[in-house]
Formats: sequence, structure tokens, C-alpha cells
Amino acid sequence: MGDARPIGLFDSGVGGLTVLREVVRRLPDESTIYLGDNARAPYGTRSDDEVRRFSAECLDELVRRDVKAIVVACNTSTSVALPQLRRRYDVPIVGVVRPGATAAALATRTRRVGVIATPATIRSHAYFQAIKDENPFVEVYEHATPDFVPLVEAGRLHGADVDEAVRRGLAPLLGERTADGEWIFPLPADARIDTLLLGCTHYPLIVDSIRGATGEGVAVIDSALATASVLAELLAINELRAPAGSTPSHLQLTTGDVERFRATATLLFGSEFTAVEAVIVPEAA
Amino acid sequence: MGDARPIGLFDSGVGGLTVLREVVRRLPDESTIYLGDNARAPYGTRSDDEVRRFSAECLDELVRRDVKAIVVACNTSTSVALPQLRRRYDVPIVGVVRPGATAAALATRTRRVGVIATPATIRSHAYFQAIKDENPFVEVYEHATPDFVPLVEAGRLHGADVDEAVRRGLAPLLGERTADGEWIFPLPADARIDTLLLGCTHYPLIVDSIRGATGEGVAVIDSALATASVLAELLAINELRAPAGSTPSHLQLTTGDVERFRATATLLFGSEFTAVEAVIVPEAA
Repeated sequence: MGDARPIGLFDSGVGGLTVLREVVRRLPDESTIYLGDNARAPYGTRSDDEVRRFSAECLDELVRRDVKAIVVACNTSTSVALPQLRRRYDVPIVGVVRPGATAAALATRTRRVGVIATPATIRSHAYFQAIKDENPFVEVYEHATPDFVPLVEAGRLHGADVDEAVRRGLAPLLGERTADGEWIFPLPADARIDTLLLGCTHYPLIVDSIRGATGEGVAVIDSALATASVLAELLAINELRAPAGSTPSHLQLTTGDVERFRATATLLFGSEFTAVEAVIVPEAA
Repeated sequence: MGDARPIGLFDSGVGGLTVLREVVRRLPDESTIYLGDNARAPYGTRSDDEVRRFSAECLDELVRRDVKAIVVACNTSTSVALPQLRRRYDVPIVGVVRPGATAAALATRTRRVGVIATPATIRSHAYFQAIKDENPFVEVYEHATPDFVPLVEAGRLHGADVDEAVRRGLAPLLGERTADGEWIFPLPADARIDTLLLGCTHYPLIVDSIRGATGEGVAVIDSALATASVLAELLAINELRAPAGSTPSHLQLTTGDVERFRATATLLFGSEFTAVEAVIVPEAA
């Protein structure tokens, strides 16, 4: 038994590679096909209709390549397009929002969870709803951190300036501190979160700075990791894991420039994801 | 510790009393306030905007009465209005869709689940999405059964004519049989469901006929029961159960005619829910 077909992963760009990385770690026998719609990224500034159309065009391509399941590794697409995508295809589709929300609702002890994401994801309130679905007694503090993706895309993952940008971005959720760690604007006890959910696939790449800003009292939940766990669980309970001893293959497709994708992937992930090929989806050329 | 305040339950009419009945069974120490918007029922034929506005007016009344949590015991309102309601109030809100969906996704072995509900609920695809959220590998067959609510509201809960109406209503999901149980239109094996989710609060009242139609090979999942279980679990993990030994009180409010509500409640549930009072919400008079 088992199913040796690849798992498809879709993202607007390179951020979803953090999900791919966790999937490959958790499921080393599984083959994968990753599709990044770099020609039309970022999705965060697109209309809902555009996000739905672009996502469907990309998933059409993955379905043509006979994937056994699809991970929508893009928070914007998950938040805006997941219902339509699930009705469009017979192939099972896992989004990134729900797994992260479930992990956060389980992690909090004080019932106060912060969510950081791009403005488009925050606007959709998808994480708010998913956490409330899990446990409506949890307070959810949503906060857009638009400065973080440009940092990551520029390959700036460490250093004092990243720490400073992260500390400033998180101040509304955590209270404000100086670079020396002195509180200049502490939050009252009943507004302090004990769990911070990273609602953007780029953010795990600057998790060290984020952990530095939150301190040890706050659990930092990574949607990429939670999604890989949920996918592994779903394949297992549905008996769709690749046969043991399979030789997995990994292919990365981009609607944009192949060399640029490879350069960014190498900058962020080393030599792990360099089997890059171009793919053309309608209108993305 | 604990919280002795009542739990609020809201439904468009009397159907949600099946949820109230399970809540009282599962949580005998808890006080409850039930509000039925009978003056404006049924919601199934209302516009989405109306359902959202009516629901908010009713929840305003429950919140004014200082409930510690609210159960939206109405599938239409849960499907259409839950996101808006959760952002409107600090009071935690539990819907009926997600608990039923979770139970159905856990119950199925063949990964084929049927959902029956009113046309409005089916149109929203809320159960489809909630089951896919739980396990996207499950096939979901949605089917509207508009004839069942009128039967229940008329107090016809048993008998050959109810059996026959139920058998006819379920034929597209189960295949068709004569009254003697002979198959005249059997479904192919890969289209047979092994789990049937009752996505309407009225349906548990005709569950005997439904079980008769499905036969023993199909698990019948009752959203009312699943919702009461989830509520009990949530109150426990959040330490909001009423103190042990509390003397619970139960109040039923209706925007419609008090005597008519009491008569229907008595017809369907015996003497359990007869502490009925009138309540006025804006425009419902």
C-alpha cells in the first residue's frame, strides 16, 4: 500500500520554502513539487479576485502533475482562496492557517495569543477565526508587521538592525523596550500574550530575532512547522504515505526568473532547493 | 473558582432546544438562557444580511443578561454570521458546525461523509469546509433535505409516513429502497457514505427514522450532541464551569408568542423547557 506520488506545495514566492523544508524534514520518503508564483508575487497587495484566480492557475499546474495532496503554503492564498480551491479540485488541500491556529490555541496558558502576519492576512481575520474555532475563550491580538518580509527577501536574517526592526514591529504586542532590554512602555498584565503565532511563511527565517524580542515567557509558534506536522498526520491516518524506502525527488517550479529563484533560495536555505525549473501559467509570463 | 453565570443559547426558533437538551444533560450544574427568535423564524429563507442583523440583535440581548459563553445553536446563523458575531462580542461564542464536522471526520472509516441540512446551510458549504479543515482527504457529499423541518415543527416525529419521507429525502445519499427494504437504485461502492452528519438542529428529533433509513452500516452524527461535548470540554479546560453543587436555573426567551413556544416545546420535549418568557428585540415585535 501507500502512494508514491509527490506532494504539491504552492506559494506566491519563496516564503513557502520554509514549509517545504519542514515537510522534507518530517517526511523524508516523500517526493515534492513546489510551485512559486514569483512572476506575480507578492500576493499581499493583490485583490481577492486576483489571489483566487492566480492560485487556481497554479494549482491547475500541480494537479496536472498528478500530486496526491496540495499544501497551500501561502497565508494570503489560504486566507482568501482556500474554500474555492477545495471545491475546484478532488485533490485534498491543506492550508497553513488552521494548523498554526490549532497549535497556538493548545500552547497558550493565559488564553492570550498574538498573531503577526502581512496586512492582507491580518485583514482577512483568518487566524482570529481559526483560533476562535479551536477555543473561543482565547483572546486573539492581531497585528500586521509589513516590514518583516522585505528584510527576509533581502537576505537580512540576523544582526542588530534585524533585531531592532523586529523589536519595533512587535512593540504593540509585547510592550516597548530599549535595545538594552529596559521597559519604556510595559503592557498591563491582562494584555500580555504568552503565545505568538508567526502567520507568514517568511517569519521562521528571522525567528531568532523574534525569540530575542519576546523573551522566554512567550511561546513562538511556527505555522510552517505546524503545517508539516498536520500533513504528516493526515497522510498517515489516510494511509497515503509513500512506501517505505522510496527514493524521493524534489522539484521547484517558478513562474518567474529561474536564476533569481535559485539565488534567493540559496541565500535563505543553502543548497537544499536548487532543482529549479521554469513553468508557465496563463498570464504569468 | 468557577463561573456561575449562565450559558446563553441562541436559535432562530425551537430547533436549538435539541442543543439545550444535550447541554443540560452534559452540564447539569450550569444555568442556561435560551433565546428563540421565533418572530422572525425560519432564517433559512432570509438574506445573509438579515441573518447577521437578527443574530446580532439576539446576541445583544444575551450579552446584556451577562452570559459567560454563547452557543449559536442555529446552523444558518453559524454558517453565515459566526465570524461577524465573534468580532462583535468579547463573550466566547461556540457554533454548531465545527463540532459536528470534527465528530464526522473522526467517525468515518471509508472517508465518505454525507451531510444533510436546510438549503441555506448547504448553500453556505460551511460543513464541507469544516470537514475539509479537519481532514481534507474526506469526501463530503452535501444534500439539502427541505422536507424534514416542516415535519418536526408539526410534531410528526414517528410513524410510517415520517419513515417514508426520510427514506425519500435520503435516497440521493444512500441509494433508493422500497418500503420493504429492497434496493431499487443501489449506489456504487465508491459513492457509499459510512457517516451521515445531521446538520440541522431539528433532525435529532427524527433520528429513529433516519437510523432506520441508513441501516446499521452508517454512523449518524448529531451536531447538537457534538456541540454540547465541545462546550463541556471548553468550559473545563478554561476553568469556567459552574461551582460544584450550584443550583442551576433555566430560562427560555422567545421573540414570538409565549404560549405557542411553550406548546411546541412541550410537544417535542415534554415538560423540560416550559419556563418561557417573552423578550423584545428591535424590529422583532
